[in-house]
Amino acid sequence: MFKFTRRSKKAGLPPGTLVHIGDRRDAPVRITVTTYDEANYTEKEVKSVEECFPIKESPVSWINIDGIHKVDIVEKIGEYFNIHPLTMEDIVNTEQRPKMEEYTDYVYVVLRMITYDKEMDSEQISLIIGENVLFSFQEKEGDVFNYVRERLKNGVGRIRKMGADYLVYALMDAVVDNYFAILESLGDTLEDTEEELLRDPGPETLQSIQMLKREMMVLRKSVWPLREVLSRLERGESQLVKENTRVYMRDVYDHTIQVIDTVETFRDMLSGMLDIYLSSISNRMNEIMKVLTIIATIFIPLSFFAGVYGMNFVYMPELQEKWGYPAILIGMAAIGAVMLLYFRRKKWL
Amino acid sequence: MFKFTRRSKKAGLPPGTLVHIGDRRDAPVRITVTTYDEANYTEKEVKSVEECFPIKESPVSWINIDGIHKVDIVEKIGEYFNIHPLTMEDIVNTEQRPKMEEYTDYVYVVLRMITYDKEMDSEQISLIIGENVLFSFQEKEGDVFNYVRERLKNGVGRIRKMGADYLVYALMDAVVDNYFAILESLGDTLEDTEEELLRDPGPETLQSIQMLKREMMVLRKSVWPLREVLSRLERGESQLVKENTRVYMRDVYDHTIQVIDTVETFRDMLSGMLDIYLSSISNRMNEIMKVLTIIATIFIPLSFFAGVYGMNFVYMPELQEKWGYPAILIGMAAIGAVMLLYFRRKKWL
Amino acid sequence: MFKFTRRSKKAGLPPGTLVHIGDRRDAPVRITVTTYDEANYTEKEVKSVEECFPIKESPVSWINIDGIHKVDIVEKIGEYFNIHPLTMEDIVNTEQRPKMEEYTDYVYVVLRMITYDKEMDSEQISLIIGENVLFSFQEKEGDVFNYVRERLKNGVGRIRKMGADYLVYALMDAVVDNYFAILESLGDTLEDTEEELLRDPGPETLQSIQMLKREMMVLRKSVWPLREVLSRLERGESQLVKENTRVYMRDVYDHTIQVIDTVETFRDMLSGMLDIYLSSISNRMNEIMKVLTIIATIFIPLSFFAGVYGMNFVYMPELQEKWGYPAILIGMAAIGAVMLLYFRRKKWL
Amino acid sequence: MFKFTRRSKKAGLPPGTLVHIGDRRDAPVRITVTTYDEANYTEKEVKSVEECFPIKESPVSWINIDGIHKVDIVEKIGEYFNIHPLTMEDIVNTEQRPKMEEYTDYVYVVLRMITYDKEMDSEQISLIIGENVLFSFQEKEGDVFNYVRERLKNGVGRIRKMGADYLVYALMDAVVDNYFAILESLGDTLEDTEEELLRDPGPETLQSIQMLKREMMVLRKSVWPLREVLSRLERGESQLVKENTRVYMRDVYDHTIQVIDTVETFRDMLSGMLDIYLSSISNRMNEIMKVLTIIATIFIPLSFFAGVYGMNFVYMPELQEKWGYPAILIGMAAIGAVMLLYFRRKKWL
Amino acid sequence: MFKFTRRSKKAGLPPGTLVHIGDRRDAPVRITVTTYDEANYTEKEVKSVEECFPIKESPVSWINIDGIHKVDIVEKIGEYFNIHPLTMEDIVNTEQRPKMEEYTDYVYVVLRMITYDKEMDSEQISLIIGENVLFSFQEKEGDVFNYVRERLKNGVGRIRKMGADYLVYALMDAVVDNYFAILESLGDTLEDTEEELLRDPGPETLQSIQMLKREMMVLRKSVWPLREVLSRLERGESQLVKENTRVYMRDVYDHTIQVIDTVETFRDMLSGMLDIYLSSISNRMNEIMKVLTIIATIFIPLSFFAGVYGMNFVYMPELQEKWGYPAILIGMAAIGAVMLLYFRRKKWL
Repeated sequence: MFKFTRRSKKAGLPPGTLVHIGDRRDAPVRITVTTYDEANYTEKEVKSVEECFPIKESPVSWINIDGIHKVDIVEKIGEYFNIHPLTMEDIVNTEQRPKMEEYTDYVYVVLRMITYDKEMDSEQISLIIGENVLFSFQEKEGDVFNYVRERLKNGVGRIRKMGADYLVYALMDAVVDNYFAILESLGDTLEDTEEELLRDPGPETLQSIQMLKREMMVLRKSVWPLREVLSRLERGESQLVKENTRVYMRDVYDHTIQVIDTVETFRDMLSGMLDIYLSSISNRMNEIMKVLTIIATIFIPLSFFAGVYGMNFVYMPELQEKWGYPAILIGMAAIGAVMLLYFRRKKWL
Repeated sequence: MFKFTRRSKKAGLPPGTLVHIGDRRDAPVRITVTTYDEANYTEKEVKSVEECFPIKESPVSWINIDGIHKVDIVEKIGEYFNIHPLTMEDIVNTEQRPKMEEYTDYVYVVLRMITYDKEMDSEQISLIIGENVLFSFQEKEGDVFNYVRERLKNGVGRIRKMGADYLVYALMDAVVDNYFAILESLGDTLEDTEEELLRDPGPETLQSIQMLKREMMVLRKSVWPLREVLSRLERGESQLVKENTRVYMRDVYDHTIQVIDTVETFRDMLSGMLDIYLSSISNRMNEIMKVLTIIATIFIPLSFFAGVYGMNFVYMPELQEKWGYPAILIGMAAIGAVMLLYFRRKKWL
Repeated sequence: MFKFTRRSKKAGLPPGTLVHIGDRRDAPVRITVTTYDEANYTEKEVKSVEECFPIKESPVSWINIDGIHKVDIVEKIGEYFNIHPLTMEDIVNTEQRPKMEEYTDYVYVVLRMITYDKEMDSEQISLIIGENVLFSFQEKEGDVFNYVRERLKNGVGRIRKMGADYLVYALMDAVVDNYFAILESLGDTLEDTEEELLRDPGPETLQSIQMLKREMMVLRKSVWPLREVLSRLERGESQLVKENTRVYMRDVYDHTIQVIDTVETFRDMLSGMLDIYLSSISNRMNEIMKVLTIIATIFIPLSFFAGVYGMNFVYMPELQEKWGYPAILIGMAAIGAVMLLYFRRKKWL
Repeated sequence: MFKFTRRSKKAGLPPGTLVHIGDRRDAPVRITVTTYDEANYTEKEVKSVEECFPIKESPVSWINIDGIHKVDIVEKIGEYFNIHPLTMEDIVNTEQRPKMEEYTDYVYVVLRMITYDKEMDSEQISLIIGENVLFSFQEKEGDVFNYVRERLKNGVGRIRKMGADYLVYALMDAVVDNYFAILESLGDTLEDTEEELLRDPGPETLQSIQMLKREMMVLRKSVWPLREVLSRLERGESQLVKENTRVYMRDVYDHTIQVIDTVETFRDMLSGMLDIYLSSISNRMNEIMKVLTIIATIFIPLSFFAGVYGMNFVYMPELQEKWGYPAILIGMAAIGAVMLLYFRRKKWL
Repeated sequence: MFKFTRRSKKAGLPPGTLVHIGDRRDAPVRITVTTYDEANYTEKEVKSVEECFPIKESPVSWINIDGIHKVDIVEKIGEYFNIHPLTMEDIVNTEQRPKMEEYTDYVYVVLRMITYDKEMDSEQISLIIGENVLFSFQEKEGDVFNYVRERLKNGVGRIRKMGADYLVYALMDAVVDNYFAILESLGDTLEDTEEELLRDPGPETLQSIQMLKREMMVLRKSVWPLREVLSRLERGESQLVKENTRVYMRDVYDHTIQVIDTVETFRDMLSGMLDIYLSSISNRMNEIMKVLTIIATIFIPLSFFAGVYGMNFVYMPELQEKWGYPAILIGMAAIGAVMLLYFRRKKWL
């Protein structure tokens, strides 16, 4: 239910020591190099990271690394590109929250990509943004960037006409767009839970509500800091983000705010649902109590009267009379009827 | 109950691609062109948007488009007017929160107009404000601007003497005034619910409370960001809003604060009503328990005594006595009376 | 219970249109003109507002208007004094929250005066502060300014030696002092409710708590924004408030903070009282359940034993024995005693 | 329980009118004059305040007034020292919250000294800080300054080497140190309450919790604004606080933050205790219900079977058989055993 | 459960008086002196603090003192190093919250090191940072710095190449890394409690939840202010922290934020668990009530019918009939079956 990555193996190592912290993986690391400018586009998969050096200035290069559990690959890129040891450490430590850090030669951005397949899972995306090069590090294969790749390949839109900063925008936009998709899924689950809540609430309804609450928490932790990152990119703090890309950053920023808004709305709705759930338990208890009370209140007095005439006293005149039995039956029916009227007046029936 | 617009069809398209996101509509798009200055006023409906080009400098032009599902109309206006692709995208994507964006030639403002007919519905109004021209885009026909149109037509007040910025003010004022009307309706529902709560609370009372809470949330999401927009317009961030219009913007700003205040008051009241509801359930349970306890506590001991004298022991001296039966009846009556006194002392009766 | 003034009749009118929004009144409008300086003091009631024009520069003039439902009076003053149409609109629209607005010739201040006579009622006071003149607009006759009037008349304190700004201070101080009086009344009600809560809580206790909560909300809405107004007056934003009056404004500001503090304390106390109320319901339920359980648990087994010996089997040896009946009676008494001991050990008795 | 000082007698008086607001007292006012420098120290009690005039420049003078209900004493000091009427008013109005006000010749500081002897009580300390003189006004005799007096008398530490500002620090430090003592007492009560909560919670436990909550509120109201006061003194806003005293002010500031921290921790703990209390009520109800249900569920069916064989039908074959009675007894025992097993499986036993 | 250190013995002493406030200890004080530069490394334990004077400029010296209950050692260092009396007082008063204070010659930093061995315990670490010297004061032996010592000894990483500021970073990093370890332990307890909550919740589950909540509070109080400290160190407020160390401070700052984030997540989860616990109590009550109601509702009417035919009326025709007994048995079975069907339809079975 709650995933808590163990950092213990890292304890006590000097800063900048590369130790992969995250789910253990055995898959091979896949490195894809994409270079493009307005006219050309090449995409190839390389075996070792040295193949893509030296990186030329003029076309934009996007080097995507799927898998960071082999820390030597990160190390080689770091050496070649003069990346600060702490940045490298952050790349392989998959517990970062979204952030942006400026260094002299590059900007380091961390994002969290969310997947939701029955369970919510969050994967760290690290971006190293250089003048005309972008490194992206992912924890494993499979991402939300296929649409970006297709637009690059087919030259749709302005993506091939612009630099690495626009590519950064496109990737961030894809991540944030994916949040909307996740929210749609969660919204569906929420609607189902709501319907269940109104139809037939049970302990598992409560668990659904709590589970949704936690998923909102995960999403929130991924989105809130991203807002700050995008705000800084939009304000143009870094020289690497060009003037004409900043308006696009503002657009992603707006989307991020929309995601946050929806998350907050969902949280409010969930807390309202919790109230409904709790009061439905009480209502059901009332229902049960009513049934018990009606039955008991009608029959306990009647049983008493039957008990009275079941007593074995020798001298009980009524018992001898012929009208005794019908009289007591009528009396009992009358008492029962009065009780029922009383309950009807109380609106219990 | 909860409307969540699907954005999925938009996934992966390059930014600036115009895809209408919102409720599907088939109605034809209606374009109305109003031009006016202090002396003249013309209003006509045009078939295609090209008819209103070129837009002249001197009288103020207000072009209102009802229906944004035909994205090519937005595109044509965008091309003619040099509108940024992201703005056009926002116009047709009806999930925007109120915001204001400045571009070199125009200011883009998003509002949300609320309609409340059994259910609350929110419609996006986009305004493109130029030097002497205002484009307004609505999702569908029917709006809250009729009073503005009449004042324009009849030249009531200063509206014909002033520029497009004042028209923007008039439209925003109409939207905010409409919030007051919505609040009045909600206030009526709230009063009804409150009365029901005090008279005869049931699960549907709780649902009314929760429904009102959600409607407050929708309203709040529409009004909160508007405050920021109006504050920026009032402070005169944009050159397109003239000095003498700013005091009017402050007035709408004040109204917005009033709306927010009332929404917060309603939320506080609703949470108080929730407390009353929950404690009324408990009170009713107490009531039920009291009835059960009184009946059971009186008759269970009495039944026991009847049971004792219903035993078939051969040697039970009391049974043979003539006074046995009346004695036991009197004894039972006494026990019952003591019990009743006890309950009266406990204030259960 | 909840008063919500209808603004609907205002919908669609151009800004600056004077429509009275508030409780309907038929009382005549009363206009009082007071002029004073250190040496002289005159006070007269005028029939029409024109009588007090032109207002001379040198002695301070205080024109108090009781009743704003005749909007033409406001209009005449506005014309004579060159008051902005929006200010005039705010004066007759009695739903303003406390605020301060600076215009070139005057400062406009809105206050809310609270009266509490079984129900809390809030009245809008508008002040137009000029160089040596103060207009005050009230919704109806009767206010908290009588002490100020007496000090003016009798020349007590420095009030006659100072200008219109000091008069503004004196009026605001009277309004805030009145809040303390209201808080004392509310504090009394709160103490009564608290005593009732500890002695004999019932649904009407809950209603008192909720009613007090709402009254706190009303008070809070009147005081919170006033803090901001006074802070701006103290900081000397407006030229019309002289240096030596500002220290007095700080004093009212301090009182306002004290009022807010007390309101917050009351709110905390009320929420604590709600907790006590809710747990007292549960405690009472426990009490009821205990009585039921004790009685039922003692007598249900006993009745069973009586029932056993009431069976009509032909061969039941105990029934024939002479010791049978006393034995069973003793047995029953023993069972009852054991039960009672058990309940005593459980501290239910 | 809740003390609310009546301000009503003050209503309508001009500002600066000295009316004592607070608990009525008859004790005589005690005035103590202490003068000291590094070499000398004198302390004397004076009958009337005039005796200590004129105050000389060079040794530091500390004039402590115990009792402010005789407002003429405050007035005389005010006249001699040119104190603003509003300051004098604040001195005798014992409802001030901690604050600091700068005037041209002096700084006015209000503190709240807390005493806790079964009930929490809060006393207002006013300090008038001059160049080399300090007036301190207390509501009544008895304070937390004895340690300061001893250090002054015996010349312990640097107190005699420094000016009036250091004395101010010493007094404020004593007040804040006293908060720690109060917190220790409250912590003891809290621990007792907690133990009671876990051992045997009852309605009086809830009242202790609520009482502690209120005491926290009182403490909080005294400490929160003090933080602001000390922060301003530390930043050196006033010239009267010398550079080398400011580091001491920072120390008291730190202590204030610690007090606030502890208060917040206590509040969190109290709200946790409230949760435990409420759930312990529910748990007890469950316990009661279990007992009732076990007894009723076992004996009600058994009684029914006894009832069946108590019926008087002429033709009931089982009744004639010799094995009938033992068979039914065995049957009943079996039913009872099954029930008990069922309850054991449900973990109710 | 709740540890509250007594400060009372300190009451009334002049500021700067060194009185140890904290748990009483008798262990001897251990002083370790470590000097190092890139080439050399020496570590020795000294008997008295004078042995390490004078401290030379060129290699970095780290003097670690385990035990602050012997205040004279702190005093000697303070004299030699010209440390402000208030700093010395803070060092021996173990109730400080994390803070940073700049003095002319040194920076004083307080941290809180957490140990978690069944109970959470927090120890104060004081750092005095000089130009090339670092004093660290701990309450007792045993800390989280062993990894740092090893890196120093073996010259791993850049630690020997850099100054005292980097050592400060290394120590702070060790403290914050330790928080992650604590969070892992707490996370385990939380998971256990959660499992218990879903499997078999009881009062001790509630106590675990409350205990975890408090431990979160302790952790929070240690981490929140640290954030501020690190932010100031990162911004380079103090000259003693060199430019190239600041990026490392930012790294610890990021970790601190992660710790805070996790603490907040845990708090949210705990409050969700509280909701589940409370509703599980209600659910269990419902369960109990259902059993009672089913049994009582079936057998009470049946017993009544048995009672009716147990009456001793002479004239009861059914009793004489041969079919009477089987008829009534069938009738009772029918009533029972109807009841069971009713409960099944209500989903109680």
